[in-house]
Amino acid sequence: MNKSGSLAELYRETPYKLAGHGQRNIGVLQEAFRQIDAEMNSDMYGSGRLIEEFQQEMAGVLGKETAVFFPSGTMAQQIALRLACDRTGVKKVAYHPLCHLEIHEQDGLKELHQIETVLLADKDSLITLQDVQSMPDDVACLLLELPQREIGGQLPDYAELAAISAYCREQRIWLHLDGARLFEVLPYYGKTAAEICGLFDSVYISFYKGLGGIAGAVLAGAAEFTQPSKVWKRRYGGDLISLYPYILSASYYYHLRVGRMQQYYEEAKELAAMLNQVEGVSTLPEVPVSNMFHLHFGLSRSKLEPILADVYEATGVGITPAARETGVSSAYCEINVGDSYGAIPKDKVKEAASLLHKLLAESR
Amino acid sequence: MNKSGSLAELYRETPYKLAGHGQRNIGVLQEAFRQIDAEMNSDMYGSGRLIEEFQQEMAGVLGKETAVFFPSGTMAQQIALRLACDRTGVKKVAYHPLCHLEIHEQDGLKELHQIETVLLADKDSLITLQDVQSMPDDVACLLLELPQREIGGQLPDYAELAAISAYCREQRIWLHLDGARLFEVLPYYGKTAAEICGLFDSVYISFYKGLGGIAGAVLAGAAEFTQPSKVWKRRYGGDLISLYPYILSASYYYHLRVGRMQQYYEEAKELAAMLNQVEGVSTLPEVPVSNMFHLHFGLSRSKLEPILADVYEATGVGITPAARETGVSSAYCEINVGDSYGAIPKDKVKEAASLLHKLLAESR
Repeated sequence: MNKSGSLAELYRETPYKLAGHGQRNIGVLQEAFRQIDAEMNSDMYGSGRLIEEFQQEMAGVLGKETAVFFPSGTMAQQIALRLACDRTGVKKVAYHPLCHLEIHEQDGLKELHQIETVLLADKDSLITLQDVQSMPDDVACLLLELPQREIGGQLPDYAELAAISAYCREQRIWLHLDGARLFEVLPYYGKTAAEICGLFDSVYISFYKGLGGIAGAVLAGAAEFTQPSKVWKRRYGGDLISLYPYILSASYYYHLRVGRMQQYYEEAKELAAMLNQVEGVSTLPEVPVSNMFHLHFGLSRSKLEPILADVYEATGVGITPAARETGVSSAYCEINVGDSYGAIPKDKVKEAASLLHKLLAESR
Repeated sequence: MNKSGSLAELYRETPYKLAGHGQRNIGVLQEAFRQIDAEMNSDMYGSGRLIEEFQQEMAGVLGKETAVFFPSGTMAQQIALRLACDRTGVKKVAYHPLCHLEIHEQDGLKELHQIETVLLADKDSLITLQDVQSMPDDVACLLLELPQREIGGQLPDYAELAAISAYCREQRIWLHLDGARLFEVLPYYGKTAAEICGLFDSVYISFYKGLGGIAGAVLAGAAEFTQPSKVWKRRYGGDLISLYPYILSASYYYHLRVGRMQQYYEEAKELAAMLNQVEGVSTLPEVPVSNMFHLHFGLSRSKLEPILADVYEATGVGITPAARETGVSSAYCEINVGDSYGAIPKDKVKEAASLLHKLLAESR
């Protein structure tokens, strides 16, 4: 860094951030609660109108019989996979090598449930029908993540997805959707949430990714599946006396932003196209299929970050708080387009892209 | 019920409730957030000033090196017991037969950790030094709950507690405190939280019992104990991106109410004395040792509840939303004295007690 302070600090100070919906500050909660009647009763250990109505609404949106609100997707998905294994009595699930459960959960699935995992596909590729057909035949459950976040949010095309679903049904393999970013992929597929979820036996969605809520998740499926998930929620300590701080903000931001996904998607494509013109920079996927993509640089993190810092300071445009090293001369960052991007004057973005172009050229 | 609606509904309508701090409604959160700067940054996955400062403050209050904020006590305590077992390699813990982990958590401890439990003492009695001395000698951890909630919030005297602690230390048995209601027992012992916690290796406290927060818990102990507890918090799905709705309200209501525990305790003794004068009613303990006690009735629940309903309607005083049956002609409810009691005109309470006396006499 050529200036005092970390890249994250400089990023925080930029007025124009390419990604996200703005700061994750207390105002996010205050805004969601401003119009709510103080007399409204809390949910109580998973019961009460407040939680039950939202669960019903989400079940309807996802086209499932029932839905259960969880404090986190980590908890919801481990429980989903455990229940899927209990159906067959074989504790074996298959998922992508960069699945959230494999890389972000400290092996909770294995430590808490002794579930064996089968990693499908190369870590840089999507899971294909062929991968699924080659799985060991005692796999109880397959988890698919749409979009595949850790590889830039890539997506299988709909025909491939439908074929995987048909195969799993035929083979009686439980198919679970990690839909943390489900609403973000609907414009690409041109389908409703219920249409996509119809291919899956169970689905989890998150409220703080593209929707920008505070935290919280929903797990949906048939009642015979969600009912025991509530027992496990209690076992995990997730059946809090009050989950309403998350539920009411989830509801508020869901309604605020679910209709903006087409716009985020179009803007992500526009931004990616602009960035792909910068020499030494490429996006993955080249043309985004949701509101997200990865930005790859042909430069080590230590050489890249001072350049980004200069761009932030000169233009006020923040690209990322931190780059991740992927090799001796490569690094990347993730961009999720939300409300912030649309508020940036277009020439500011162009100015940042062309300064980045210039500084990268000088560094070679 | 002689009137339409359940006892819980009638209770909700009463203007004068003996127990609690008032309705658990959205206003509880709104009040806690009213004065907070909207620009304050969220905690992020267990990091950031907001969570770290509160954890430090609680570590100080509890006299422990470190403290970790958890969404729930269920999660915090299972993890505490697991870590205690990992020290010795023997998955065996001892606790009271009516311990929260035994009766309210759907066997999470056993299902998630395969930990064997040794139940100490008769379910109607406190755990004594003698019970502890008679445990199997491979017990890794003893959990004590102060006060013992399910038997009216009884407490061992301090000398007994100190003797149990000394014995555990000598035998290298990990001693964990279920201090869900720790602040509530300090006036009886005449000790600080740190003095009581000094007898224990680890301690959990709750923010929504006597303190009246929304949800949340803290687990405290040495850094070598709390550090791995964060890994398990991640495994459980409790390491949320944002826990601030619970942390900030925990902090607000902790500071609001921690100084009122002596008052709640005195009021609980006063109220229990008044109720013990009603024939057919007795409190457990007879003289409360915290802000809580159980109210026992020599009547079946089905005969009792219409009488309670009449008392609520005639006097406006609410005693409980529901009684629990304990035998063919016995039932009880729990009373936790909080802010509500002090706001009731004294003659209203007397009026309710004497009507209860009269109606119970007529029912015999």
